[in-house]
Amino acid sequence: MENKRPLILVSNDDGIMAKGISELVKFLRTLGEIVVMAPDAPRSGSASALTVTQPVHYKLVKQEVGVTVYKCSGTPTDCIKLAWNTVLDRKPDLVVGGINHGDNSATNVHYSGTMGVVIEGCLNGVPSIGFSLCNHDMGADFEAAGPYIRKIAAMVLEKGLPPLTCLNVNFPDTPDIKGIKVCEQAKGCWTNEWEVCPRQNDRNYFWLTGEFADHEPENEKNDHWALANGYVAITPTKVDLTAYDFIDELNQWIEENEE
Amino acid sequence: MENKRPLILVSNDDGIMAKGISELVKFLRTLGEIVVMAPDAPRSGSASALTVTQPVHYKLVKQEVGVTVYKCSGTPTDCIKLAWNTVLDRKPDLVVGGINHGDNSATNVHYSGTMGVVIEGCLNGVPSIGFSLCNHDMGADFEAAGPYIRKIAAMVLEKGLPPLTCLNVNFPDTPDIKGIKVCEQAKGCWTNEWEVCPRQNDRNYFWLTGEFADHEPENEKNDHWALANGYVAITPTKVDLTAYDFIDELNQWIEENEE
Repeated sequence: MENKRPLILVSNDDGIMAKGISELVKFLRTLGEIVVMAPDAPRSGSASALTVTQPVHYKLVKQEVGVTVYKCSGTPTDCIKLAWNTVLDRKPDLVVGGINHGDNSATNVHYSGTMGVVIEGCLNGVPSIGFSLCNHDMGADFEAAGPYIRKIAAMVLEKGLPPLTCLNVNFPDTPDIKGIKVCEQAKGCWTNEWEVCPRQNDRNYFWLTGEFADHEPENEKNDHWALANGYVAITPTKVDLTAYDFIDELNQWIEENEE
Repeated sequence: MENKRPLILVSNDDGIMAKGISELVKFLRTLGEIVVMAPDAPRSGSASALTVTQPVHYKLVKQEVGVTVYKCSGTPTDCIKLAWNTVLDRKPDLVVGGINHGDNSATNVHYSGTMGVVIEGCLNGVPSIGFSLCNHDMGADFEAAGPYIRKIAAMVLEKGLPPLTCLNVNFPDTPDIKGIKVCEQAKGCWTNEWEVCPRQNDRNYFWLTGEFADHEPENEKNDHWALANGYVAITPTKVDLTAYDFIDELNQWIEENEE
């Protein structure tokens, strides 16, 4: 008899041992059959990076009713590509990344391995959602996010998502969530990004750090604002990056330039 | 006396030793003062990945009139962030990634470290352009691209680019370029992505490979089509990934879901 429960493929960038991914499985397991393929160690800040200079491998970690878990030597994006082509027996109904330990709102979407997972699912035509919590601690409390995660995932399983569109969902670090806001990606950039380390072997070393400078801190449409004010921020996110609204003007520039 | 020539920050993902980056410097050096900070080894497929588990360092490689070259232990995105905060004495007028050995059109924009460079420049408010050639060979011939690169870079130095918009420029691998086409990012996805390696240590290993399946091969607006037909493809690219056209519908879904 065919298994008719929805198939949910899960990965993250904090690695297979992170609390966030086991919490995610806990919240989602009533919704379908879960397959996890996640990096065998933390790979934060992986974006959509691929492993191209060496082969990757995976290993079965755990198999119980409704949940199968693999770890993989590759990046978060490798995990999705590899699960898809090896361990899954059919196309997943949902790809989910997270729950990330740390905020992936605003421009962080570009650096996030969790959103790399989601973008990969979306490029392959599967409704895909990333969940992140604004707390980097290993022991962060994901409990308040649980009911929202279940509700949003169930909604997307039922309705799907438009082509080339995925969801970037971020949770404020509070037990008193005020509700959901559908948001825009906040405009801003990181500043003071490098901490100078003590000089070693005649070289300067730098650790990546920094603060996010929000260019529109009062803009209530922004995901950054929603999180700062206690709301779940859902930012619908496109993987077609074409700047359609600039095509005509650019064509004009090129024409003038060729005269 | 202040240096009034435009400041052009250059990086790539093939690494400092790649032919593509020295060719790029050759083509651009008449346009301004050039600072290169590039990875000290190949980092293809880096996307916008960051180095977060160790500190990074850089080293001066070469300094001649109008061109200063550094190599860096980090990712392409680290290179831009680090150059910006350490070796540059002012905000660059242009950030350029490339010339990449290999096609970054279509969905490759998501995986490309060269486009990671460009996205980082763009997020920081600097007009930014990525140049790539559809040829992976170490000794690829970039000569036909030269006049186009100079022209496009000069145009962007003069006119700038709209906020949060950068250019993804790809060259066909031919000496007979037919002209420029302003394009859309081709829709499609990678298939047959893993080659199985001989089993080692009781594990299966997989090498990333694959073919791009174009979902609209006849669509003349697509960058993939333009390249296949001998044109330079300029795909204007957004770093604000918000799916604005889905916000109203998603709000409706959430409302219905909460009733």
